[in-house]
Amino acid sequence: MKNLLTDIPEILTAEVFQTIIENKGVKIERITSLGQVTPEGEWYDQAENEWVVLLKGGARLMFEDGREQHLEAGDHAWLPSGCKHRVSWTDPQQPTLWLAVHWPNGE
Amino acid sequence: MKNLLTDIPEILTAEVFQTIIENKGVKIERITSLGQVTPEGEWYDQAENEWVVLLKGGARLMFEDGREQHLEAGDHAWLPSGCKHRVSWTDPQQPTLWLAVHWPNGE
Repeated sequence: MKNLLTDIPEILTAEVFQTIIENKGVKIERITSLGQVTPEGEWYDQAENEWVVLLKGGARLMFEDGREQHLEAGDHAWLPSGCKHRVSWTDPQQPTLWLAVHWPNGE
Repeated sequence: MKNLLTDIPEILTAEVFQTIIENKGVKIERITSLGQVTPEGEWYDQAENEWVVLLKGGARLMFEDGREQHLEAGDHAWLPSGCKHRVSWTDPQQPTLWLAVHWPNGE
C-alpha cells in the first residue's frame, strides 16, 4: 500500500486489516471500516499496548466504565494493555481509516 | 494535543517535535515542519527503527544511495536502524505534519 489515504479497499463487507510493517514486536496496521462495530457484548481485551489515530471517517470507542470517545480524522486514542474497549460505531456512509500501532507490554 | 491534524503549532521558525506517547521503548511523535530541511551534508543515522507517515503537506526524504522519496499526505516511509537519511525538502507554503513511530532495534 503506497498511500494510506487513497489506496482504499473496494470490498468492505467486513473490516479490512492491512499490516504496513511488523518488526521487533511492533506492528503497524491500517484498518478500514464501513459501518462495522464490535459485536454487542464483546470487548477487545488485549495483552499488547495499542495506539490508534483516525485518518479518515468517523468512529466511536466505548470503554468498560461506560465512557465513550468519538473520533474524527486526526483524533487518537491510547489503548494500553488490558484496557477493555469496543468499537461502538463507525460511519456507514464512508470508509473509515484507522492507523493502529501495537507493541508488547512485557519486559 | 487532542487532534493531530488541527492542533498545529503557531510558531514554526524551527521544527516542532511533540511526543504523543512514550511507553515500553516505543515513542510516537508528531513533527511539524515549515520549509525546514536537514542541514546540507548532515544525515540522520539512528540506532532505533522509525516509520513515518505524512499527515499533511509535502516533504522529500533523501537516502545515502541518492534515492529520493517524495511524500504527500498518506505516504509513508520505513527508516530502519542504520538507514541514513535526510529531509531534503519540506513545503515552505504550508505546515507539514509527520507522524513518526520509533522503537528499539535490540532484544
